[in-house]
Amino acid sequence: MTGLQGRHFLSTLDFSVDEVTGLVDLALDLKRSRRSAALERMVSVLLFFNPSVRTRVSCEAAMVRYGGSAITIQPGKDTWNFEAGEGVVMDGNTQEHVRELAPVLSRMANFIGIRKCELITVGNDKATVTGSYPELARDFFMHRLAEFSEVPVINLESNRFHPMQGLADMATMRERFPEPRGTKYVLTWAWHPKSLPVATPHSQLLSAADLGMDVTVLRPEGWSLEPAVLAAARARAESRGGSVRETDDIAAAYRGAKVVCAKAWGSLDYYGRFDEEVRRKQPLRADWIVDEAKMARTDDAIFMHCLPVRRNVVVADGVLDSRRGVVVDEAENRVWTAAAVFAALGGRVR
Amino acid sequence: MTGLQGRHFLSTLDFSVDEVTGLVDLALDLKRSRRSAALERMVSVLLFFNPSVRTRVSCEAAMVRYGGSAITIQPGKDTWNFEAGEGVVMDGNTQEHVRELAPVLSRMANFIGIRKCELITVGNDKATVTGSYPELARDFFMHRLAEFSEVPVINLESNRFHPMQGLADMATMRERFPEPRGTKYVLTWAWHPKSLPVATPHSQLLSAADLGMDVTVLRPEGWSLEPAVLAAARARAESRGGSVRETDDIAAAYRGAKVVCAKAWGSLDYYGRFDEEVRRKQPLRADWIVDEAKMARTDDAIFMHCLPVRRNVVVADGVLDSRRGVVVDEAENRVWTAAAVFAALGGRVR
Amino acid sequence: MTGLQGRHFLSTLDFSVDEVTGLVDLALDLKRSRRSAALERMVSVLLFFNPSVRTRVSCEAAMVRYGGSAITIQPGKDTWNFEAGEGVVMDGNTQEHVRELAPVLSRMANFIGIRKCELITVGNDKATVTGSYPELARDFFMHRLAEFSEVPVINLESNRFHPMQGLADMATMRERFPEPRGTKYVLTWAWHPKSLPVATPHSQLLSAADLGMDVTVLRPEGWSLEPAVLAAARARAESRGGSVRETDDIAAAYRGAKVVCAKAWGSLDYYGRFDEEVRRKQPLRADWIVDEAKMARTDDAIFMHCLPVRRNVVVADGVLDSRRGVVVDEAENRVWTAAAVFAALGGRVR
Repeated sequence: MTGLQGRHFLSTLDFSVDEVTGLVDLALDLKRSRRSAALERMVSVLLFFNPSVRTRVSCEAAMVRYGGSAITIQPGKDTWNFEAGEGVVMDGNTQEHVRELAPVLSRMANFIGIRKCELITVGNDKATVTGSYPELARDFFMHRLAEFSEVPVINLESNRFHPMQGLADMATMRERFPEPRGTKYVLTWAWHPKSLPVATPHSQLLSAADLGMDVTVLRPEGWSLEPAVLAAARARAESRGGSVRETDDIAAAYRGAKVVCAKAWGSLDYYGRFDEEVRRKQPLRADWIVDEAKMARTDDAIFMHCLPVRRNVVVADGVLDSRRGVVVDEAENRVWTAAAVFAALGGRVR
Repeated sequence: MTGLQGRHFLSTLDFSVDEVTGLVDLALDLKRSRRSAALERMVSVLLFFNPSVRTRVSCEAAMVRYGGSAITIQPGKDTWNFEAGEGVVMDGNTQEHVRELAPVLSRMANFIGIRKCELITVGNDKATVTGSYPELARDFFMHRLAEFSEVPVINLESNRFHPMQGLADMATMRERFPEPRGTKYVLTWAWHPKSLPVATPHSQLLSAADLGMDVTVLRPEGWSLEPAVLAAARARAESRGGSVRETDDIAAAYRGAKVVCAKAWGSLDYYGRFDEEVRRKQPLRADWIVDEAKMARTDDAIFMHCLPVRRNVVVADGVLDSRRGVVVDEAENRVWTAAAVFAALGGRVR
Repeated sequence: MTGLQGRHFLSTLDFSVDEVTGLVDLALDLKRSRRSAALERMVSVLLFFNPSVRTRVSCEAAMVRYGGSAITIQPGKDTWNFEAGEGVVMDGNTQEHVRELAPVLSRMANFIGIRKCELITVGNDKATVTGSYPELARDFFMHRLAEFSEVPVINLESNRFHPMQGLADMATMRERFPEPRGTKYVLTWAWHPKSLPVATPHSQLLSAADLGMDVTVLRPEGWSLEPAVLAAARARAESRGGSVRETDDIAAAYRGAKVVCAKAWGSLDYYGRFDEEVRRKQPLRADWIVDEAKMARTDDAIFMHCLPVRRNVVVADGVLDSRRGVVVDEAENRVWTAAAVFAALGGRVR
């Protein structure tokens, strides 16, 4: 993994397709070999502005299984409130500037992970966003953290991307389709009581694109993903002999699919007007669940989801619990892909 | 410890008396030898739905002292809200089903610990229970977690049992009474401003029973422990030459005791009607504290308590701080018994 | 580091100047050598009654980099409420007495760290103190914890002292001034929207004093540090050929300085009457910021601050971001000085 040491991991779009697939190969190697001292005495500081199960446990487990250690921090609860603006007179509610936070953590740790996404909430709590989607999609705080960090910063889910999930999805597909090029992959929108982030579907789209798959993004009108991300995915897919298309034709999309990946996400058109979105999407609920009937139209497709998943809302029990449901394997691969990222960025693999 | 690898540790009643005493022997061996690599690179994920000091620190310390590592999670604070029901349409407040949570954590860790008990609260906060005692005593969520876990699930205190405390109590008595059979053990109820769980007294009762002691459960009328647990304790005690009896005769109970173990617990009769229970038990306060006068009637008994203990409410300073108070040794044994459980269930001891 | 094993580290005043400078030398040795097994399999339990970034991460990182491990606990959130009073009838809001807590944690861990300071709050939250400064300066709970602990207790910031910060400041100055004796050091008060603890400036004052520097404490009338601490600092400085003086003459203080260390702290005169203090100090805001003009009067002084620092309130961006700002190095030294304290008190260095 030459060329990765010391770099930030904020989006797979900052890496070539070869570098991304190289990380996936490394993850599958680590999965086979398991024990090693690849991260011996290394420390990750993980900043979780939002709750987490898989991301936190997979990163901590990756560190400790390979001899390292993780320190998880919940900013604003365990710590000060952080500031990222330039030239700010800090006489308000923020106490510590990222210009200090980033280099200080860099001296204490080998990696800084950060989850900071405005739409992640517990239970049915509604999110209140602080800006428009284009503003939030800049992921300003995370990029400032990376700007001032002396060690690799790793995106554990921002407003725009969730690249660690993307790598795990790639590893999961690679395990089942050693040559995924040209295989039909469907990323389907699902109804959900809340408006969830686009970060995960963006990174899932990119994961299939980087594998050169034939990607169908299936979503209702009004729930398109970000055009720039779609364009980037298309270019990367085509460079590998694949393709990316969008549709709202459910029946056609499922036909011949080898992979169905479901994800609920909020509309960029209604961003911040979540009550309005809830009303608009109500009629879609019945049609968009992934159920046995839809899966029967596929070419014996596997079913993927990043988890947590709301059962019988996003996907029927009968699909999730069938032999085609691979969500647990997909979650497990979060550990090995996280280990690969740490080892590669930390310069511990050649 | 053949036969324990891979099993869940939800109640000592799931294990033979020989298996339980074997775990205690292993704990005392580990205590003597201390350093080893018994848990090298193993990971425990500990789910604390309730606060904890000893249980959390003893489990984490056991893991790290033997080369492993622990990840402590507070569900609902750090994470999603979890669901355990079958066939639920998850459009409410729960976000992640135990059918995913359990196998996913299994892939990331070697053990899953869980503390989930409705009556544990901080300070004087009152508990609000979500069901009757018979409902809550099913410990539904914990058993579902175990059902879907691929690795051992360890009970860190449920509504019904606290087996890790039971093992530590056994180890503490074994250290002082190499042959505890037939020794008089008194488990005494104590007045307390709140209504506390029966999990700990249940496991303490079983710990003395499994050692074949002559067990007296001393409690006022209306504060009996669960009949099925009493019956199981009696059967196990008798199989080892011991006995179990209940009484409300304080003077008779203390006479000749070698061990006095105090514990406050809530009445199963008033379960959920805590204000009524508080009124009912008010007259009992003065008589039920463990003080020097009561201890003077014993046969130089040691004083045990699981901690935390409300001083001069449950027990007088003069008892706790005397040479007969063994609560610190008892708490220390939480580390070694936890290490024994991890090592035995993890297949790391032969 | 003979003579340090097993001792508490509550204040540098409990140690001779030679012992303190010896710890700093050890820290700089550890910094150069980095990897070792100095803390192999050792465990620290860190009790944080208040939020933290640097203190927590530096202590955890020190433990894990040298082969140990840390367990961070937030009392009252993760745990019971603690009691420290003698002979208390615990039927109120406290559940666990330090007489149990201290020895129990001692059996589970090799060190107990404690941060407990009434004036530390997140954002602009106001503190509400439970006593007068002379009462709180006794640091009663911490001293009770130390009284009943069987292992070293380490002060991670109390109401009166922050000795871990003091050691890091000493190490930072030692790196730049191999012979700091007689060098001019200015500890300057700064305006701040809140009333902050005196613990850090007390320990910073002592750090310069122990190095034998010529110390100027620059503060407005009404914001003197505690007289007993000033007297102790003066005695220790003079024993090393240095001096300590107080002044409110800003221009004179900066002249010839080689070190400017800025810190906001609350007035002991207005302690507990924070709104009144805010009004009184408002006119001081403009004059007391550390800016380029003031720094230009120094003898090319370095700028120190313990962090977090409110930019353009306590110090101007132009000072902090200049080559003379050493706050990141100062924070990094928290790791190595923490490692030195753990290793010396733990008897792991000779």
